[in-house]
Amino acid sequence: MYGPWTKLISRSRRQLGKKESIGVGLLGLGVVGGGVARALTGRAEALDTQVGCPLRLLKIAEKDLAKTRASQINPDLFTTDPAEVIADPEIDIVIEVLGGEHPAMELINDALGRGKYVVTSNKEVMAKHFPEFLSLAKDKGVDILYEASVGGGIPLIAPFKQNLLANEIRTIYAIINGTTNYILTMMASAGVDFSSALKQAQDLGYAEADPINDIEGIDAVYKLVILTTLAFRVEVHPDDIYREGISRLSSRDFRYAKELGYEIKLLAIAKEQDGAIEARVHPVFLPQDLLLAKVDGVNNAVQVEGDLVGRLLFYGQGAGPAPTSSAVIADVIDVAQRISHGVSITPMLRLDPTKKIKPISEIETRYYLRMSTVDRHGVLAKISRVMGDNLISISSVIQKESDISADVAEIVLMTYPAKEQAMQQAMREIEHLDVVREISNFVRVED
Amino acid sequence: MYGPWTKLISRSRRQLGKKESIGVGLLGLGVVGGGVARALTGRAEALDTQVGCPLRLLKIAEKDLAKTRASQINPDLFTTDPAEVIADPEIDIVIEVLGGEHPAMELINDALGRGKYVVTSNKEVMAKHFPEFLSLAKDKGVDILYEASVGGGIPLIAPFKQNLLANEIRTIYAIINGTTNYILTMMASAGVDFSSALKQAQDLGYAEADPINDIEGIDAVYKLVILTTLAFRVEVHPDDIYREGISRLSSRDFRYAKELGYEIKLLAIAKEQDGAIEARVHPVFLPQDLLLAKVDGVNNAVQVEGDLVGRLLFYGQGAGPAPTSSAVIADVIDVAQRISHGVSITPMLRLDPTKKIKPISEIETRYYLRMSTVDRHGVLAKISRVMGDNLISISSVIQKESDISADVAEIVLMTYPAKEQAMQQAMREIEHLDVVREISNFVRVED
Repeated sequence: MYGPWTKLISRSRRQLGKKESIGVGLLGLGVVGGGVARALTGRAEALDTQVGCPLRLLKIAEKDLAKTRASQINPDLFTTDPAEVIADPEIDIVIEVLGGEHPAMELINDALGRGKYVVTSNKEVMAKHFPEFLSLAKDKGVDILYEASVGGGIPLIAPFKQNLLANEIRTIYAIINGTTNYILTMMASAGVDFSSALKQAQDLGYAEADPINDIEGIDAVYKLVILTTLAFRVEVHPDDIYREGISRLSSRDFRYAKELGYEIKLLAIAKEQDGAIEARVHPVFLPQDLLLAKVDGVNNAVQVEGDLVGRLLFYGQGAGPAPTSSAVIADVIDVAQRISHGVSITPMLRLDPTKKIKPISEIETRYYLRMSTVDRHGVLAKISRVMGDNLISISSVIQKESDISADVAEIVLMTYPAKEQAMQQAMREIEHLDVVREISNFVRVED
Repeated sequence: MYGPWTKLISRSRRQLGKKESIGVGLLGLGVVGGGVARALTGRAEALDTQVGCPLRLLKIAEKDLAKTRASQINPDLFTTDPAEVIADPEIDIVIEVLGGEHPAMELINDALGRGKYVVTSNKEVMAKHFPEFLSLAKDKGVDILYEASVGGGIPLIAPFKQNLLANEIRTIYAIINGTTNYILTMMASAGVDFSSALKQAQDLGYAEADPINDIEGIDAVYKLVILTTLAFRVEVHPDDIYREGISRLSSRDFRYAKELGYEIKLLAIAKEQDGAIEARVHPVFLPQDLLLAKVDGVNNAVQVEGDLVGRLLFYGQGAGPAPTSSAVIADVIDVAQRISHGVSITPMLRLDPTKKIKPISEIETRYYLRMSTVDRHGVLAKISRVMGDNLISISSVIQKESDISADVAEIVLMTYPAKEQAMQQAMREIEHLDVVREISNFVRVED
């Protein structure tokens, strides 16, 4: 149907910067890929109007033949070889929704290297290779878009690229893992322990059989890498980010949190202060009256503070095929509009090589500390002395629920802002006090 | 410094689509204009990097000489004549932050007519002249940007233009007036009545001496017109939007709301269902557990539901010079990037002339109804009969706090979804019942 002459015309039009139609290739027909394919085919007319010329899904790479058969998509579009999609000269935009680092990284590099635009929903590959993709895209005069990689359909990348450009970003506080937020919501509202809440999340399909990526904060780290790179223009790798999961939280911590006026959330935090950047993922005590603290269930929310704009919050479903495909398609429209108008705009983001991530030992925050001690006069004095020696001030103390027969008391301390290093040192010393049986938990507090 | 040859070169570069620097003119040096001028001058270097070439504030029109003197801006930039700013051939982007319909409308038309890009924070002029500005901008190959006209620095326009393009928008529920949200928060939390809460808002500078635009919902209507036009591609005028303010809410309504599990908010609502569009501003009972219901104080929040993306919420400070200038500058950067890359993209928005706004009589919702009746057996039966005759089902009833000596009882009803027309008819009939002294209030309920 398309002979060599047609191709010649299409090429020369491309050089002139205008195209008659835009070819799209899709790598992966999983839940997200299926949603994307449905939207591209089912909403073709509306999308073409947005773009200004026809947007045509030309090829789909999927190895699992059961998925291609179940998809009800024209079988001629399928190939089992992703390289075939990338090599197709009619394809201008490659959508990568395979997930995982490999082979996504190689495929994205190949596509960018051939001067194709890339749209991805893959947080892991973006977190691990963001700077090299940026630089390759710049070299080749194309772009890589990744709105779907963080927070599903919630616009989280676009605000940093556009709406907040006049601001210096101060803080990002993000609930960006729905599985853990569901588990924490259950623990807080139903008083259940971690393992029952996890079981419930698994039964409902909110947590995977192997939940480690979610509950240990690995997924949140990937997303935080992307947000931190974008907001603070710093080169950051997942290994640079301090990470703690939620498995050591107990229902006792939730009871104390409530009593003290806090909710417990797994937060991804990034801050810039005096040129130094913090980036960390761990459970946090958040004041109950903060809107972010009221975000329940599998939902995601990102609170961003800019020097001009103050505190913003973006909230919505952070995952799922429909929200994620909404974000992928928005990126495809964005790229296609540029191609259709003959504009090639490469990534605007320029990283600042002088910026570095602070080690966790250098951060300063408040702490919640729960200890099991002997039930005797003078225990609190000994603990207070250790804290004082490490220049940590205590803001409040709860001591109760003693088990008299076992000679055990529980003490909960809240501190004023203190250095993490000092706090770690104080905890080591407290553990060695003869009156202390164990430090049951400690959680950082953010206001 | 710039002789005729320089101008010739600059002109021919413009024809080639590239510019060496971009000229900006500012109309108005009020609180927002002052913030914009400070950001444009104080952050010049960062902005130039974003844009790719120097962004120069060339002229500021301000009639009030006290403001120009107080501004500490180079006096050479000032003129008292806005027409001079628009006519300056070196000015590519005109920022209009005067507010009000006139002369903003004439100035924007003049600027667009001369092929200049316009950035505005003016909700009133956008609400009244949006379609004509769009069409003039298209004719002249330029664009008008208005992110700052709704919700201060919260990105509310960009999501509809970009991130949500793959979606069919179903509903918009918006708290877009900080003054009224502050007053309602005070009434709910401190139990004060409307006039004390208003007084407090005025003392704190959250409400103006003449608060009518805020408390009667006029300001919210302007913003809803802009959001509705954009989200549903419908031509809508402020007069098309049903409007009720907050002044007839009493502290009794807040007590009942709390008891029934609701918060009372002034909402701007737009919905599309089966091609028909609702757009209205009035107080609403909102379920307490909805995140939107938890938005307190002077903050704004907009909840948007799309068919793919589900429910999103955007939250932040809805007003103030710094947040508003953040949005203005983001729009200026957007336009300047296009100019600097030699791209002229006209507005993508195409209105659908077949779409219309439903009259309020045709909407269907639930209702809260509070009545003062005689304290006698059989009163509820009579009221229930009227409701039944009008095909309205009652979902719950509260009857209490009788003033026995005065023979007065108060009855509160909550209904199942009913037609507004039927409800209005039922209320007219109830008012004529001999056992009913008055209908004290009625409020629509949204879930």
